[in-house]
Amino acid sequence: MRKTKIEIARLIYKPKLPASLRQGITIKTGAVSEPDEDREELKKLFPNTYGLPLLSVESGEEAKWPAINVGVILSGGQAPGGHNVISGLYDGLRHFNSRSRLYGFIGGPSGLVDHKFIELQHDMVDECRNTGGFDMIGSGRTKLETKEQFDSGAAICKELGISALVIIGGDDSNTNACVLAEYYAANNMGIQVIGCPKTIDGDLKNEYIETSFGFDTACKVYSELIGNVQRDAISAKKYWHFVRLMGRSASHITLECALQTQPNVTFISEEIKARGMSLDDVVDVIVKSVVQRGNDGLNFGTVLVPEGLIEFIPEMSKLISELNDAVSSSEEFNKLPTDDDKKYYIMQALSPESRDVYLRLPHKIANQLTLDRDPHGNVQVSLIETEKLLIKLVSAKLKKLKEEGEYKGSFNTVSHFFGYEGRCSYPTNFDADYSYSLGFTAAALIVEGKTGYMSNIRHLTAPATEWVAGGVPLTTMMHLEKRKGQIKPVIEKSLVKLDDNPFRYYEANREVWADSSNTYLYPGPIQYYGPEQICDATTETLSLEHPYNHM
Amino acid sequence: MRKTKIEIARLIYKPKLPASLRQGITIKTGAVSEPDEDREELKKLFPNTYGLPLLSVESGEEAKWPAINVGVILSGGQAPGGHNVISGLYDGLRHFNSRSRLYGFIGGPSGLVDHKFIELQHDMVDECRNTGGFDMIGSGRTKLETKEQFDSGAAICKELGISALVIIGGDDSNTNACVLAEYYAANNMGIQVIGCPKTIDGDLKNEYIETSFGFDTACKVYSELIGNVQRDAISAKKYWHFVRLMGRSASHITLECALQTQPNVTFISEEIKARGMSLDDVVDVIVKSVVQRGNDGLNFGTVLVPEGLIEFIPEMSKLISELNDAVSSSEEFNKLPTDDDKKYYIMQALSPESRDVYLRLPHKIANQLTLDRDPHGNVQVSLIETEKLLIKLVSAKLKKLKEEGEYKGSFNTVSHFFGYEGRCSYPTNFDADYSYSLGFTAAALIVEGKTGYMSNIRHLTAPATEWVAGGVPLTTMMHLEKRKGQIKPVIEKSLVKLDDNPFRYYEANREVWADSSNTYLYPGPIQYYGPEQICDATTETLSLEHPYNHM
Repeated sequence: MRKTKIEIARLIYKPKLPASLRQGITIKTGAVSEPDEDREELKKLFPNTYGLPLLSVESGEEAKWPAINVGVILSGGQAPGGHNVISGLYDGLRHFNSRSRLYGFIGGPSGLVDHKFIELQHDMVDECRNTGGFDMIGSGRTKLETKEQFDSGAAICKELGISALVIIGGDDSNTNACVLAEYYAANNMGIQVIGCPKTIDGDLKNEYIETSFGFDTACKVYSELIGNVQRDAISAKKYWHFVRLMGRSASHITLECALQTQPNVTFISEEIKARGMSLDDVVDVIVKSVVQRGNDGLNFGTVLVPEGLIEFIPEMSKLISELNDAVSSSEEFNKLPTDDDKKYYIMQALSPESRDVYLRLPHKIANQLTLDRDPHGNVQVSLIETEKLLIKLVSAKLKKLKEEGEYKGSFNTVSHFFGYEGRCSYPTNFDADYSYSLGFTAAALIVEGKTGYMSNIRHLTAPATEWVAGGVPLTTMMHLEKRKGQIKPVIEKSLVKLDDNPFRYYEANREVWADSSNTYLYPGPIQYYGPEQICDATTETLSLEHPYNHM
Repeated sequence: MRKTKIEIARLIYKPKLPASLRQGITIKTGAVSEPDEDREELKKLFPNTYGLPLLSVESGEEAKWPAINVGVILSGGQAPGGHNVISGLYDGLRHFNSRSRLYGFIGGPSGLVDHKFIELQHDMVDECRNTGGFDMIGSGRTKLETKEQFDSGAAICKELGISALVIIGGDDSNTNACVLAEYYAANNMGIQVIGCPKTIDGDLKNEYIETSFGFDTACKVYSELIGNVQRDAISAKKYWHFVRLMGRSASHITLECALQTQPNVTFISEEIKARGMSLDDVVDVIVKSVVQRGNDGLNFGTVLVPEGLIEFIPEMSKLISELNDAVSSSEEFNKLPTDDDKKYYIMQALSPESRDVYLRLPHKIANQLTLDRDPHGNVQVSLIETEKLLIKLVSAKLKKLKEEGEYKGSFNTVSHFFGYEGRCSYPTNFDADYSYSLGFTAAALIVEGKTGYMSNIRHLTAPATEWVAGGVPLTTMMHLEKRKGQIKPVIEKSLVKLDDNPFRYYEANREVWADSSNTYLYPGPIQYYGPEQICDATTETLSLEHPYNHM
């Protein structure tokens, strides 16, 4: 099969490993770790995997480790580096014992349940080194939650002699990995479970986990494009570009892209919610920048909007929730003959405040909220093109300001959505090295008999040789949370914290970015060769959260 | 001002020049060249600049060239490399005489007419080396066509002592450059005019000009994204991605991206027109691939659509033309009270065939054609989201095939438009070298007293040192063409030729790309460092048109 030149070059790239992983290893047991909250409840739920110590993997004697059969699963959405976790795991297992075998479960967690698998051979692994995508074994969104699933998984593991599973996923998948580890331990089934932190959204991080793999690459792809669009804006001088970015729950991607590109206006969902901003407030932020720049003769600009923005605007989230309550299970509503009847029905059902919000929405968006529903009858929030909604509302306000003589500029717009473009890029050197090291570390934890751990690499802003490998007990990252009406133990999704450095840096600079100073940055495409500071540096977020001073 | 690491690195990149330009030069006069057609008419229209010889710039003695003041103009849409033409021109002028000066006219051709300019100093030029965008002096779309404009330009040239202008633009801008050169020559105004071939669309090329600068970079940016989206498609296995690409007149961009990424379905407007394909035929091409792949269990794929597709489908172009005729200047139409009245009016005005096409369009698109009009009352073809139109029509047809039991798959879609993302990227090494060389060559032509030429670099698939610099008379590339009812001398826009190698390669392979073989290519991001074959190679189009065998 034909390959591009860059693919051929990337296949032979040797990911950098922490120095401690290069020869023999020894596992050093650290302090017993416990979650910050809900300790008693979690201890009861996870008697076998609670209260485990933190682990670090350090250089040690070359030794004879056992041959082990391991299964690996990709879970959830694509993130650059997935193939490298697998190749790191494969190389690690072989490093410790050349007779170890690795099986890939096909199409995600369902592969384990339905016994779809493939033994990963050398040439298959070599074909995927440092490439993007999850196409090597595929991924899926099946949730491992039931005893039946666990038992079915155990059966295939028994058949294949698999004594350890590695689950590569986000917060939910690692929550499930934790439950699975506990189940197999509680029932003495002889199957270890190790998790690896994956998600471009960057919302799987905490006191122990500095970042998830994929975030670095995805943000760099988006930032390249935003930078290009900004350079187009400042050259053509006639368009405001509205860019919606993937990330429904947390705004880490949007924040990171803002730090990399310095656009005129950026919204961080977590701030919108914390400050209780209305849709009108959001629109005013844009209008302010457009008017100031327009009156200075700069009729162009950039606005970054996180995909999930709408749901973080309190009045909108209230409206959506009322809409869902009103109609999701209403037989009566569904029987109404015309769209007008439906709209009237909804109007009657809404609270006065929500009715007011609803009536201020542009016609098309109101229709979408009223009529386009998912199979459960719920509003399809992900279909709302927030950037277009904002453009309409901003235009309306500018028209008024123009009539009043407050605004002298012109407002033409282009809208963009960047999402799928970043999930399957070739990983950056950082993500290639990091995810490979995560896989290699998982192998170390496995040969040392550990279960219920997440593979962990710290000091990520240092050069890779200085990275510190280890393991964090999955239970240590858990807390209790209400999900669909039930209290459940879950790994907390990490939202943008308004008192952390990345947000504070943005906050301290955004006024200058919004005004008529030209402060755009142009990050350019991801580079794999050339100066280290260009090719190996990671995100602004990580640099601000964990400045490099580990010496 | 803050700069990104890549910007800092690119500022110090030294573009490669043809070996012949590195020291002294001599201009070698080749054969007298004439256009292929309309010779007599063109000779009459351009008595002073017709029938000039082809020129090549070759190594020569170091000599003393005169100090010259030159003006430079960016015209039309952005293309990566614009800044490098300017820096190449600047360096070239200084190379030949350090007392030469370069003025930039601000905001495009209107800067010349309205006397808006800036003298380009060393530090300004240094700030823009190898960067994307046209923000250094700005661009504009004013057409230089009238005697008043030419005289106004001459006045400011006289004031600044400018004896040569360099116009960087596409086919239209170079047509105007030709007329301007003739006017200044005919009136002995002492102002030389040199053109440079710019456009991401790749449609300014001919027997003499191998490609325009910017095409290489833009196509690589789009191909990176298409490759990423394809890797996402084959990983997630659940979406067909429809990608619309910039390029309204010619489909070179779409063809080049197809050659770089091998998507399942690609449309080339020129072929659609040549084969007289209907909208239905176009839809069937997609349906065929979707059905075959879907029935093989592959419910994902990619479709590339050139921006201008609609206008190349004969029945659609007929419909649009009839719509424009029917209503663009109709007082009666504009006075109709409701949208329904307007639609009825249109229905009456259309020919039976066009009425049929109109009625088969999805509701929303028909509305757009009927009601959304530009200030002249014309259909706004550029607003039609062709990829969404195709998705609707394909879905409808698949539904029917499913009912008939012919199709067993599922069809979920994501649509993209890539355009602004590629116009202002940092130029590739190829575009950086090529455009710099074009500027440097323009300087050589100027100091040697030439006018009415386009700066020209040939053998572009060879290493840059072997490139051949020269000049082609602008009149030689002209022919007569009907534009807005008038016969005019213009440089022909080069469309995709169906019997040239690039199209033939695509044609020979597209069936395999469309079926269930997995033949996607993943070109990855533009690289500036590292192996030459990755960093310096140009487009597939150029490699197929001008294979490297110049030895």
